[in-house]
Amino acid sequence: MKSTVGVIGGGQLARMMIPPAVALGVTIKVLEEAPGMSAELAATAVGDYRDLDTVLAFAQTVDVVTFDHEHVPQHVLHALVDAGVPVRPGPDALLYAQDKLLMRQKITELGLPSPDWAAISDADELGAFLETHGGRAVVKTARGGYDGKGVRVVDDKNGADDWFIALAEDGRGGSLIVEELVDFVRELAQQVARRPSGEIVAYPVVETVQKGGVCAEVIAPAPTAGDAVAGASDRTVADEARDIAVRIAEGVGVTGMLAVELFETRDGRVLVNELAMRPHNSGHWSIDGAVTSQFEQHLRAVLDLPLGSTRPREEWSVMINVLGGPVGQLMQDRYPAVAERFPAVKLHSYAKESRPGRKVGHVTLTGASLDGVLTDARAAAAYFD
Amino acid sequence: MKSTVGVIGGGQLARMMIPPAVALGVTIKVLEEAPGMSAELAATAVGDYRDLDTVLAFAQTVDVVTFDHEHVPQHVLHALVDAGVPVRPGPDALLYAQDKLLMRQKITELGLPSPDWAAISDADELGAFLETHGGRAVVKTARGGYDGKGVRVVDDKNGADDWFIALAEDGRGGSLIVEELVDFVRELAQQVARRPSGEIVAYPVVETVQKGGVCAEVIAPAPTAGDAVAGASDRTVADEARDIAVRIAEGVGVTGMLAVELFETRDGRVLVNELAMRPHNSGHWSIDGAVTSQFEQHLRAVLDLPLGSTRPREEWSVMINVLGGPVGQLMQDRYPAVAERFPAVKLHSYAKESRPGRKVGHVTLTGASLDGVLTDARAAAAYFD
Repeated sequence: MKSTVGVIGGGQLARMMIPPAVALGVTIKVLEEAPGMSAELAATAVGDYRDLDTVLAFAQTVDVVTFDHEHVPQHVLHALVDAGVPVRPGPDALLYAQDKLLMRQKITELGLPSPDWAAISDADELGAFLETHGGRAVVKTARGGYDGKGVRVVDDKNGADDWFIALAEDGRGGSLIVEELVDFVRELAQQVARRPSGEIVAYPVVETVQKGGVCAEVIAPAPTAGDAVAGASDRTVADEARDIAVRIAEGVGVTGMLAVELFETRDGRVLVNELAMRPHNSGHWSIDGAVTSQFEQHLRAVLDLPLGSTRPREEWSVMINVLGGPVGQLMQDRYPAVAERFPAVKLHSYAKESRPGRKVGHVTLTGASLDGVLTDARAAAAYFD
Repeated sequence: MKSTVGVIGGGQLARMMIPPAVALGVTIKVLEEAPGMSAELAATAVGDYRDLDTVLAFAQTVDVVTFDHEHVPQHVLHALVDAGVPVRPGPDALLYAQDKLLMRQKITELGLPSPDWAAISDADELGAFLETHGGRAVVKTARGGYDGKGVRVVDDKNGADDWFIALAEDGRGGSLIVEELVDFVRELAQQVARRPSGEIVAYPVVETVQKGGVCAEVIAPAPTAGDAVAGASDRTVADEARDIAVRIAEGVGVTGMLAVELFETRDGRVLVNELAMRPHNSGHWSIDGAVTSQFEQHLRAVLDLPLGSTRPREEWSVMINVLGGPVGQLMQDRYPAVAERFPAVKLHSYAKESRPGRKVGHVTLTGASLDGVLTDARAAAAYFD
């Protein structure tokens, strides 16, 4: 069995692939951007993921290449493929996680539900969209956005002029995307894994709570109407979410984990918001809450191993991100206080120094009562603020 | 918080400390005996754990020293303590895991139940013990035994002559231990963790099935009479087992994990068999089956962090060792066949080449039905034979 996985990027997603690699006996090697990153333990090379020679040299030391992020340029990805390196997900799939305009076009082509959207090239086109959508809309850059960056709510046709100017200066031209401001009751995320041979498994759909464009809290599974939680809806939402993600995974040819961020609307529809083709923040609960974590699943998928069970180990899992905290402090400095009060809370540190708003870790709690789990997880997480 | 743990020994127990260290953001460094051992990923030094200079130099790079095995000599341990290194468990506790004669004396001194036993210095003393114990007994060397080595059933007063000769040649003198052949219905193992500040937590007592002196299978928790399984007994056995382990942990001053191997007798008594002061094969189920694995618990304990919940995540966990398999093959060569048929089975490879009888990994399955879990876990494990 081929069993050396190379991960491009040394962030926390690469870090969290290390534990399942150790369990499975899979060798993991990381190309990190700079020394001392989160996945340092498995780093075997340091360098720029945009530099073809650096990436090619790294790829020669592994059986399959995968990613901590989606920023490796297409020409580098294609050069890897041309050199015979298995790249998972491949460039033709990854393209839709790199470019939001292509993604919107593809989702529409697949007949899947998006918010109303348009490609716009100037302020007049933005103005026209605003006029037919109540005067407010979301504008996004096609490339380079994450965690709320490259996304802006505008109520004026000139509200994205700086981005139009930047696009023009870039010389490559291109458009921005404008989308209707969806009147959603909550945000969901659906994760699936697909291996090269075609097998797909789905996790339960989860509810995500964003703060300032950043994922703050995840409840797995997303509560349904029967659970009598505010904002809950019918069970068919879970079926719809799963079907959408499976159709995207197949339609785009994803290998590895795929996360589909979704809006659930007041009138019970589910709309595709964003895609990520890697383990995703909305799936961190699975480390402690599912039989197979998203990180193990990603390794299985990129190695074309049969996929693992996605069954939750307990009824409810709540994951809360640790954002920031006192500058310069490590998350583990607060462990004694938290661990003493919450012995069942799982502590995950990314070994990164705190800066305001920086994701430095997360906590997860699982159990039979959603109310109890949610209350305790929030109380535990508060120690890290 | 002090957070660099140094592990002496590069075997699979050190390896299995890596995943929780990564999750907690704890730095783990391993002194391995030779390059390329099971815990290679975290190895920062290679050398002989019996060599004081090697061990002292390694200890200077970490905040606390702990162990993959119990073979570090007392004089080395004491030199570490004298140099101000926190050693957990400390030499005065570890002594009772290193020397079975001292252990028997201590267990008896603590008023805890042992099989009938005696220290013997020659064949006549062995003969006398045999006469009063039905003509058969177990003879053990005080030091150097593990996985069935240094343990022998004898029915003749001259059955341990080679060991007496070896002891005499050793020049240090010393005795062998003889113990009654216990008429047990099953073997149990009780694990507890104790931190320097005194806090103790206990795992559920488990049933262990030995084959050829080696642990083959573990059922967690040990079935009770109510579960209607052959060999089952009353729930009070669990209480007794826990109380015995707690009294040993306190009486000996263990820090870290303590495993107490026990015999359950036909007449409902629980007798102490062996001790181990480290994560133990009987606790591997906890990686997938408990809120806090024994490996995370060991790290918490040696760092004097508050201990984690020992609650099982599901009703039943079954762990089966993978022993041997085709020579030269890696466990992962069989993954495709196993993973396809058993998507919920957790696969753990120690990245060691197979040799007959060598522990190269284990599988764990958890679920609500003991019968189902046991059947499927055994079927999955059989693929690795």
